[in-house]
Amino acid sequence: MSAPRQLHFNAFLMGCGHHGAAWRRPQSPIEQLGDISFYERLARSAERGLFDAVFFADGQAVGDVSTGPRWFLEPLTAMAAMARATSRIGLVSTVSATFYTPFHAARMLASLDHISKGRIGWNVVTSMFDAEARNHGMNVLPSHDQRYSRAAEFIEAALKLWDSWEDDALVLDRGGLYVDPARVRPIGHSGEHFRVDGPLTVPRPPQGRPVLFQAGASVPGRELAARYAEGIYAVAYDLASGQEYYQDVKRRIAVAKRDPDTVLIMPGLVTYVGSTQAQARAKQAEVDALLPTEQSLAQLGTFVQQDCSNWDLDVPVPPLPSLAGFTGPQGRYATILRIIEAEQPTVRQLLGRLAAGGGHCTMVGTPEQVADQIELWFRSGAADGFNVMPPLLPESLDEFVDRVIPVLQRRGLFRTRYTADTLRGHLGLERPTIGAAV
Amino acid sequence: MSAPRQLHFNAFLMGCGHHGAAWRRPQSPIEQLGDISFYERLARSAERGLFDAVFFADGQAVGDVSTGPRWFLEPLTAMAAMARATSRIGLVSTVSATFYTPFHAARMLASLDHISKGRIGWNVVTSMFDAEARNHGMNVLPSHDQRYSRAAEFIEAALKLWDSWEDDALVLDRGGLYVDPARVRPIGHSGEHFRVDGPLTVPRPPQGRPVLFQAGASVPGRELAARYAEGIYAVAYDLASGQEYYQDVKRRIAVAKRDPDTVLIMPGLVTYVGSTQAQARAKQAEVDALLPTEQSLAQLGTFVQQDCSNWDLDVPVPPLPSLAGFTGPQGRYATILRIIEAEQPTVRQLLGRLAAGGGHCTMVGTPEQVADQIELWFRSGAADGFNVMPPLLPESLDEFVDRVIPVLQRRGLFRTRYTADTLRGHLGLERPTIGAAV
Repeated sequence: MSAPRQLHFNAFLMGCGHHGAAWRRPQSPIEQLGDISFYERLARSAERGLFDAVFFADGQAVGDVSTGPRWFLEPLTAMAAMARATSRIGLVSTVSATFYTPFHAARMLASLDHISKGRIGWNVVTSMFDAEARNHGMNVLPSHDQRYSRAAEFIEAALKLWDSWEDDALVLDRGGLYVDPARVRPIGHSGEHFRVDGPLTVPRPPQGRPVLFQAGASVPGRELAARYAEGIYAVAYDLASGQEYYQDVKRRIAVAKRDPDTVLIMPGLVTYVGSTQAQARAKQAEVDALLPTEQSLAQLGTFVQQDCSNWDLDVPVPPLPSLAGFTGPQGRYATILRIIEAEQPTVRQLLGRLAAGGGHCTMVGTPEQVADQIELWFRSGAADGFNVMPPLLPESLDEFVDRVIPVLQRRGLFRTRYTADTLRGHLGLERPTIGAAV
Repeated sequence: MSAPRQLHFNAFLMGCGHHGAAWRRPQSPIEQLGDISFYERLARSAERGLFDAVFFADGQAVGDVSTGPRWFLEPLTAMAAMARATSRIGLVSTVSATFYTPFHAARMLASLDHISKGRIGWNVVTSMFDAEARNHGMNVLPSHDQRYSRAAEFIEAALKLWDSWEDDALVLDRGGLYVDPARVRPIGHSGEHFRVDGPLTVPRPPQGRPVLFQAGASVPGRELAARYAEGIYAVAYDLASGQEYYQDVKRRIAVAKRDPDTVLIMPGLVTYVGSTQAQARAKQAEVDALLPTEQSLAQLGTFVQQDCSNWDLDVPVPPLPSLAGFTGPQGRYATILRIIEAEQPTVRQLLGRLAAGGGHCTMVGTPEQVADQIELWFRSGAADGFNVMPPLLPESLDEFVDRVIPVLQRRGLFRTRYTADTLRGHLGLERPTIGAAV
């Protein structure tokens, strides 16, 4: 009899929390965002909750700096410190395949995997904004197709680099060889986008290869995820969209001749927890009320790629172009269309939905109610776990850890102690052998 | 009355120590090179000795893996962890201007400066080997001149990025602005090598700008150092070559209209310390004897860019082409020519000289004898301090800290406690204002 299927949780850390007005609360940690000990404390909280990993997004351009914190510490350097403040939890960072070279990315991630003793994951992104390209010597971002083609080759080169040292290459024979040169090989990669001779400068990572995550919502994004990802950060506004995504991507994984059970799909999840549902709702309304509507309209404008600044707040959202006619990032736009279709919200109501997690699934209620919904998604083919996006840091993470996790543990849905030392181990993934297909 | 001039010390950490056979000793830490706690312990030892900083070299190609450890952990990620294991000592990493983009480098270094609370330095290098270029998409390394031209522009772009956030840009007004957008500005850099629009994603580093180090020995290298460096890692085999370099570079700094007193020149220094000079010499001979001559000849071949494998070990070194006719890295080659001219060594003797620190100054003796020589260099216009290159780790660092430092302290030449919290403070350098000339 195999062990019952278990939930997986990532803690997605961002600024003072994912709600756009989280930093405006009197008690927000806004003064601490440059202080690494703040992130170390969050990582320890998530580790106390036996989470699989903490996760950092990343971007290469500052965006609108006035409206709230976006980027501050660079995630790879922050994660090295967080690795030393924890001992079991995984640490996942976004690294863009559009701006790094595969050698830099593979080397840093391998080094971090050694520093953390096997707890590193890599969220592969292709980046979104021309402003990012213009910080790295380009005038505009390469096309969507070009970026995905580059990302696939980037991943292939990184995998080969991690495989360039055999596991037993370090001989450490004081009277003879340091390394057996026959067990460290060039990779000789030469493709459309990259030349990478290899080998890597870093011996094989403890996990063999850091764990690959992906978050694509577009068709090329889903295809890339199906081909390479071991964990997938999904965007699903409701159970139906979660099921659609889950089933579509699991099917694509099978088509790519991989075992769908070895790829974990984790939708983003925003939670407000209270002793009663009313209390949880009040918590949400309290931070919603801090949101400046002008700035929210400007942000909505970037999502729908038109000027929304004159939109009337208390009438239904005006008609938007269909997804097929939309040229920007597709995942969030599709969610906006779905919210509009399902709820016919006013503009103000839509802004409230988007302010925390941008249209990710939101659960508001008692620990039992939130656990009920998590269990429903888990048992209904919509999720293998969740990418928990605390709207308010540190409170929302702490309340998930201290109040929701115990309910799931009592139901036998989540571990009661770590049974592995590596991120791969937490996720139930095998350590890849050299040259293994993804 | 101004305070008396004080020595400065960097601890240059490399593998099991700078001696090529250090790892072959029975007690060497060769098994620990992938374990970050090894480097954390070394950083704490250097901090116990009140060193200004620890320093990591870096390379982008693995080289000959069989003969001994070269690279393992990537230095920026390792330094983030080391920053959290220490509280006062500076942390300097090499970052190549040939393979990174200025935005990546400036961002990581700024992030590390926040993580360490103002203790980061950047050793700017231009890289040396075609094998490194072939890991980053090029077929060969750009020419020496092109690399230096690129490095100068790279530094300019990084300085502008660090200046792109004013010191008081973070307003943190919960009812209004997170950041004052008027105090965060694009840099609009557009040059021969790079386009970087900026601003940086990271607020201004605690030090304003991380401290710039350089190690150029060639004329373009000296010029780059004179123009930008705040600390210079020199290669000087003996006092005369130390004085020549020191005086030449201080003159170039003045020609570049900078104050020569604000740029610290730190030659590399290999020390073997014993209770008697005979004991110190025995320590050196013991590790020299572990050196495999065949591998040393191969390494010599890379330095002089010819095949030395058939050279007879016990006859004088054969004639070598003059510096003017040499196309490889010039600093080490010049040192080799100087050793040959000064000492007419046999090939075996030359290998012994090069095995630890490759021709850097070597001092062997009692703590007082080593302190005497350090003081002589310091008072004779050859050094403002030293880049200490422990031949054997951790012993050589510990013996320098525990036996040489106290002698220098008694002589009033070195601090007896830290009087600053930042690397800039330890080095006696001002915090740069926005837009300040270097």
